[in-house]
Amino acid sequence: MESPNPSTAGKPIRCKAAVCRKAGEPLAIEEINVDPPRSREARIRVICTSICNTDVSFWRMTSSPGGFFPRILGHEAVGVVESVGEGVTELKTGDTVVPVFLPDCGRECADCRSENSNLCSKLPFKLSPGMPRDGTSRFADLRGNVIHNFLSVSGFSEYTVVDVAHLTKVDSSAPPERACLLNCGIAAGVGAAWRKANVQKGSTVAIFGLGSIGLAVAEGARLCGAGRVIGIDTYPEKLEMAKQFGVTEFVNPVDCGDNSLSQVINEMTGGGADSCFECAGSPSLMEQAYASCRKGWGKTIVLGVGGEGSEMKLQCMDVLQSGRTLTGALFGGLKPKTHIPILLQRYMAKELELDKFVTHEMEFEDINKAFDLLVEGKCLRCVIWLYRPDQSVA
Amino acid sequence: MESPNPSTAGKPIRCKAAVCRKAGEPLAIEEINVDPPRSREARIRVICTSICNTDVSFWRMTSSPGGFFPRILGHEAVGVVESVGEGVTELKTGDTVVPVFLPDCGRECADCRSENSNLCSKLPFKLSPGMPRDGTSRFADLRGNVIHNFLSVSGFSEYTVVDVAHLTKVDSSAPPERACLLNCGIAAGVGAAWRKANVQKGSTVAIFGLGSIGLAVAEGARLCGAGRVIGIDTYPEKLEMAKQFGVTEFVNPVDCGDNSLSQVINEMTGGGADSCFECAGSPSLMEQAYASCRKGWGKTIVLGVGGEGSEMKLQCMDVLQSGRTLTGALFGGLKPKTHIPILLQRYMAKELELDKFVTHEMEFEDINKAFDLLVEGKCLRCVIWLYRPDQSVA
Ligand SMILES: NC(=O)c1ccc[n+]([C@@H]2O[C@H](COP(=O)([O-])OP(=O)(O)OC[C@H]3O[C@@H](n4cnc5c(N)ncnc54)[C@H](O)[C@@H]3O)[C@@H](O)[C@H]2O)c1
Ligand SMILES: NC(=O)c1ccc[n+]([C@@H]2O[C@H](COP(=O)([O-])OP(=O)(O)OC[C@H]3O[C@@H](n4cnc5c(N)ncnc54)[C@H](O)[C@@H]3O)[C@@H](O)[C@H]2O)c1
Ligand SMILES: [Zn+2]
Ligand SMILES: [Zn+2]
Ligand SMILES: [Zn+2]
Ligand SMILES: [Zn+2]
Repeated sequence: MESPNPSTAGKPIRCKAAVCRKAGEPLAIEEINVDPPRSREARIRVICTSICNTDVSFWRMTSSPGGFFPRILGHEAVGVVESVGEGVTELKTGDTVVPVFLPDCGRECADCRSENSNLCSKLPFKLSPGMPRDGTSRFADLRGNVIHNFLSVSGFSEYTVVDVAHLTKVDSSAPPERACLLNCGIAAGVGAAWRKANVQKGSTVAIFGLGSIGLAVAEGARLCGAGRVIGIDTYPEKLEMAKQFGVTEFVNPVDCGDNSLSQVINEMTGGGADSCFECAGSPSLMEQAYASCRKGWGKTIVLGVGGEGSEMKLQCMDVLQSGRTLTGALFGGLKPKTHIPILLQRYMAKELELDKFVTHEMEFEDINKAFDLLVEGKCLRCVIWLYRPDQSVA
Repeated sequence: MESPNPSTAGKPIRCKAAVCRKAGEPLAIEEINVDPPRSREARIRVICTSICNTDVSFWRMTSSPGGFFPRILGHEAVGVVESVGEGVTELKTGDTVVPVFLPDCGRECADCRSENSNLCSKLPFKLSPGMPRDGTSRFADLRGNVIHNFLSVSGFSEYTVVDVAHLTKVDSSAPPERACLLNCGIAAGVGAAWRKANVQKGSTVAIFGLGSIGLAVAEGARLCGAGRVIGIDTYPEKLEMAKQFGVTEFVNPVDCGDNSLSQVINEMTGGGADSCFECAGSPSLMEQAYASCRKGWGKTIVLGVGGEGSEMKLQCMDVLQSGRTLTGALFGGLKPKTHIPILLQRYMAKELELDKFVTHEMEFEDINKAFDLLVEGKCLRCVIWLYRPDQSVA
């Protein structure tokens, strides 16, 4: 892969970006200016970016935590470092990087030093529309008006500026159209099974919600050698698709009759699944997942984003007497700088299957079609190409 | 220690027991008959039994899950096997045993075989007033009327019959007036810190409720080398007593002013304790404990018995974004047959301190005074002597 032109370093770059000017309206591919990276930042030439439901959610949002317009969405990107700002020693021009919404300062905070946390406390994850250190943006339209950042990534732009805490360096020989799946939901699902739940060989897994996150949990469970993988979804088509992801049994809550979902799962498994994963963001489904995991050693891991203010309720006696464990896993508990390279390596070693998640690929100018596909539920991941390194060589 | 007389084997034994005939009324020391052990049971000559709040709770209870009278309370006993029933190969006359409310079938069920569960599924723990396998009682008054069992132990009787799943054999040279602390709350507290939370050297522990369970957590935390131990209680006297148990800092929720308890703990600890233990049985205290543990790696362990039907509420977003773990620990997560002997050994090696929990000792005929002391909150553990092996030698 060719290095990006270093002659651009230190100057604004004019390039194309898909700008979201108003909630729910088609993105506009516009010329914008991208400022040079400041201290501890790098400017990235984006190769490709996949779309996720979080993009769609924020695209639609008119109020907190979204509602910042104009904005450049996109957070599942892969790119090449064009230039670095002051104080950046860990990255250099030409490095292949995966920007990640979740910060990882390396070893500057207790969380990043710990094996057991992925929640950087030096630059805590927040949904701010600016850069993580100073809150400003590196994007402006040609009249000089600010365009907001998204999740510290803004991958729907040919160039973006990302804080080093949000960048993981990866093997440049890895296919970018697969590496881009490793910085959000797909990695989160795989990671939740692999790291957070530590799914054991032969064990029983139950997945509540079979969108791309739930299917990624299934892939993680397969990777860990799970024995039975039970998929739960209200949409029969989701159950159908899940077969290709190693889900071995299916339950539609609608068909549970007089029994609760957890009663059905307990019945099927002789007392509950070893690990349960909530991948829909529904409080009642979280409660059912908790009640579906095995007393004694069962773990329930919440991956779904519940509505603001929503609560789940647990019977105090059940918490005590069941001995079950409940936890949540932002990014599946993965530490970006540690685990993304490992997952990529396992993909390249043909252990981790990523190909099946990419149902569509498109050119940048077709990005609104990709949004439509996602909205219609017809797509797991659509990869948007912004720059093809091979073509640039030609 | 001398073996009990084997000539009694196979016949009922007439002996004294403290019988609870009516809720909340003084126990009556009566002559009763104790049947021989049936299949997989052993008859035990009780040496001593300590009193715990659970005895007091059931003594007072007029309805479910208590309310069975007449009944022989007491569940923190130590004794010597007098005779064994059919099919008992693991115990013999003369063995020193600790009866435990929590069953442990050994290796007959998946839970007892697992390192990660202490909830036997072969003979699941239940609050029934009879023997665990057939629901009947081995106690009768002299007119032949049934007297109910309590927690599969009924330790306030000179002789009792206990299922082998509820018996742990221990070193006969251990002092029985200390070994009797290892089958309920004290062991639960120590075990919750040691096994369930796996408290790390130098880490910060917060204990919500400083009764004997909370103080036992403090002892477990000390044993594990915790750095800071924060004690929380609404009674200033409890905070005072806790100093002798290695509690280093104190918070009275009443003094938190405009802040919530968890805000105060978060402030004191720079982001939360590494492990939090709820030892009071209050749903709101469980919620505060959860909110007081460190994001990323913090664990909250519920030990307190919440009222029937009581619920704790968790913000879904907080569960996801904090990555905290919530779990409960009946008997502190200890497996009776595996961990009681280890704790006893650690006591004999002068690592685990048990002496400080025994604030009182009494003869059997003074048992009602012991109940009074506990009710008045003047006592951590009072050991009731039923039989002094030394005297019997004389
Ligand atoms: N933890 C993380 O780091 C992380 C990362 C990305 C996304 N997420 C979250 O994970 C969740 C799932 O994301 P996704 O992209 O797979 O979403 P999705 O909408 O594609 O999938 C959710 C699935 O759950 C099913 N579902 C919803 N309610 C249900 C119910 N009550 N019973 C049974 N099935 C039900 C839906 O039919 C759907 O198939 C979202 O809340 C998302 O915000 C979390
Ligand atoms: N998990 C187990 O295996 C196990 C074993 C035995 C007992 N228990 C349970 O553990 C709990 C504690 O037992 P104990 O014998 O120590 O009881 P206890 O009544 O002696 O102690 C409870 C302490 O909590 C304090 N407290 C109550 N509400 C409070 C609040 N809102 N804020 C702060 N402090 C508060 C009280 O002042 C008291 O000091 C009980 O619920 C008991 O049933 C559990
Ligand atoms: Zn950090
Ligand atoms: Zn995403
Ligand atoms: Zn068992
Ligand atoms: Zn007890």
